[in-house]
Amino acid sequence: MRKCYFDHVATNPVHPDVLEAMIPYFKEEFGNPLSVYEYGARAKNAIESAREKVASLVNAKPAEIIFTSSGAEANNFALRGIALAKQNEGKHVLVSRMEHHSVLNSARFLEKSGFAVTYLPVDKKGFVDPETVKKSITKETTLISVIHASSEVGTIEPLKEIVNVAKEKNIVVHTDAVATTGNIPVDIRDLGVDLLSMAAHQFYGPKGAGALYIKQGLRIVPLIYGGIQESGRRAGTENVPAIVGMGKAAEIAEAEIQKRMDCLLPLRERIIDAMSGVDRVYLTGDRKNRLPGHASFCVEYIEGESMLLLLAAKGIFSASGSACSSKALKASPVLLSMGVPSSLAQGSIVFSLGSGNTSEDIDYLLNEFPAVIKRLREISPYAQGWGDREEGGQECTVKE
Amino acid sequence: MRKCYFDHVATNPVHPDVLEAMIPYFKEEFGNPLSVYEYGARAKNAIESAREKVASLVNAKPAEIIFTSSGAEANNFALRGIALAKQNEGKHVLVSRMEHHSVLNSARFLEKSGFAVTYLPVDKKGFVDPETVKKSITKETTLISVIHASSEVGTIEPLKEIVNVAKEKNIVVHTDAVATTGNIPVDIRDLGVDLLSMAAHQFYGPKGAGALYIKQGLRIVPLIYGGIQESGRRAGTENVPAIVGMGKAAEIAEAEIQKRMDCLLPLRERIIDAMSGVDRVYLTGDRKNRLPGHASFCVEYIEGESMLLLLAAKGIFSASGSACSSKALKASPVLLSMGVPSSLAQGSIVFSLGSGNTSEDIDYLLNEFPAVIKRLREISPYAQGWGDREEGGQECTVKE
Repeated sequence: MRKCYFDHVATNPVHPDVLEAMIPYFKEEFGNPLSVYEYGARAKNAIESAREKVASLVNAKPAEIIFTSSGAEANNFALRGIALAKQNEGKHVLVSRMEHHSVLNSARFLEKSGFAVTYLPVDKKGFVDPETVKKSITKETTLISVIHASSEVGTIEPLKEIVNVAKEKNIVVHTDAVATTGNIPVDIRDLGVDLLSMAAHQFYGPKGAGALYIKQGLRIVPLIYGGIQESGRRAGTENVPAIVGMGKAAEIAEAEIQKRMDCLLPLRERIIDAMSGVDRVYLTGDRKNRLPGHASFCVEYIEGESMLLLLAAKGIFSASGSACSSKALKASPVLLSMGVPSSLAQGSIVFSLGSGNTSEDIDYLLNEFPAVIKRLREISPYAQGWGDREEGGQECTVKE
Repeated sequence: MRKCYFDHVATNPVHPDVLEAMIPYFKEEFGNPLSVYEYGARAKNAIESAREKVASLVNAKPAEIIFTSSGAEANNFALRGIALAKQNEGKHVLVSRMEHHSVLNSARFLEKSGFAVTYLPVDKKGFVDPETVKKSITKETTLISVIHASSEVGTIEPLKEIVNVAKEKNIVVHTDAVATTGNIPVDIRDLGVDLLSMAAHQFYGPKGAGALYIKQGLRIVPLIYGGIQESGRRAGTENVPAIVGMGKAAEIAEAEIQKRMDCLLPLRERIIDAMSGVDRVYLTGDRKNRLPGHASFCVEYIEGESMLLLLAAKGIFSASGSACSSKALKASPVLLSMGVPSSLAQGSIVFSLGSGNTSEDIDYLLNEFPAVIKRLREISPYAQGWGDREEGGQECTVKE
């Protein structure tokens, strides 16, 4: 059976060159970067070389990159670190309703710690309106966090416009760029953000490596205290192999990013075009300003997990909302914030394409997916009286 | 030239079987453990299998093990997570002066956040006196954190006695067991602690994987918020390869721990015995209750880093204090807390033995080290008028 992995926003295998670059750092180059002798110096050099590559990918200076263990850690670090560092200036933070749980739940932690948080509404396509940001700013506001692109609906936010609004008031802007970094061009100077989170496994680097870009001169309170690693901003023995891997992945992404986008965009378009013709299947997010390999839908009368499981039985691997919330079995807060009715949000499905996906994979998907929808609707109590039930006959249990 | 790595408390290469176990999870088994399809299920199973092995190593239940990215993260999580969870019961924490920076600096963060912290004094050998713990407890005390064994001076603390004192008052006890787990038997039931931090790279597992044992039923506030990974206690896409590696390393350590200790103990004893005969070289820490592969000294009239560099030039790799503080160029707070004069603390050196060290390595060390001391004393302004300066002739610069 054909196997089609369409869940690249959940995670990815590492690029073969990335793994090759990492291997020595598990073995003979195992030194602790803080050690004064040669093993330490070589490990330290390896980390600094990786830092240069990651910095280059987002057009930052190497000293502006702090390695973390994940995108989630980078998001926690950014939100709590800036809120605390600036608490004497004000205790109000803006975050959008499109954010990943690691931002939303950090914001909730801040609320419990005496901060005020405004959750910015979004429109039907998931866009944050810069005018809304402007109106939500108070004299107490110190930080705005808006995701670069949602991994759930693919929408790329108007970040530059939001930054312009924030800069008028001298407010720090953080963006969660986990879904974009390495997948579309991300330039911190162009975007104008002060902090930007990324995760290596989103661009064929290893799990266990993330980074936070922190604009030079910006004070931040650490999340993890201890030794003097990462300029005293993030303690703990550096995960040297993973950092080296992230550097290599950044280098490859920078070289290949246009090629990757050119390859994914037509595949995505084929899925969206074809699914537009299926009854009561709705594209979520914006058609144009979206991640190049991202096609997400809500399928009426169907529960998302059933779709995932039937598709998986056909060798098609996809997601219903973000991986971090998929097992929470709740309707996606992102979809709800976009005004999608709760019942429809239950029928959410996301195909995220990546390296290795071919036109034949899309043929296969477009052959199987409508059939899965049809089959599930035949057994759906909500679909009674709707659609071509006659064709389905008496079938009322899911057979494998 | 012979190369002798005597800095196993700084870090270690991974065991070959550990790397072999990890490799598939970078490649074909790359799934996100939260994904509902087969890749996700296999990644999830791999993590749960690793959790069982790590739990077994310290005699905990699997559900009591939460994976982190490092020992430092586990220490931050424990201190801040318990202090916050119990802040309605009291806002006083006890930590010993033997603690790693990740505990001490977490305690300082708590002080800034409105908690009171008492730093427990230690005796000349680095022992925390359970009676002192008892006297330091107030009605506000909710947490006591005492390191299991110091990686700087090797002293193994009387943790069971400290736990007994704490339990009389129903106070939670955390221990930083980063230096001990996998190296000496660590049994959380026997020790009686409520939380215990560990780091895989200390027992031939990978960097980037640590864990916190949290006694069943104990409430803790997360350090990293986000998705529902690790039972909602630690968010972020799991570092599956590193966690698998930690599990394998735990399994190997559990099987080999006695053999490892039996191998290291006589080597350590040879170093300590031989160096006892060198003038004005003092063992730091306790002679008996110490890590089996750990020999640490203060060498009078000499600056530690010079020793490290001259030894490194001979292929002997060692440390001066902990790796996390070595480049801070300060006298070790641990040694100062033990009453070592500041000038003597500057001459600190630690040899930590591990897998691969042989009797011949010790021969080589014991041949070279006294010569390095002699040479450095000849050029030390503090050593003028002391020792056998005549033999050193006119040499007054360090030649390679």
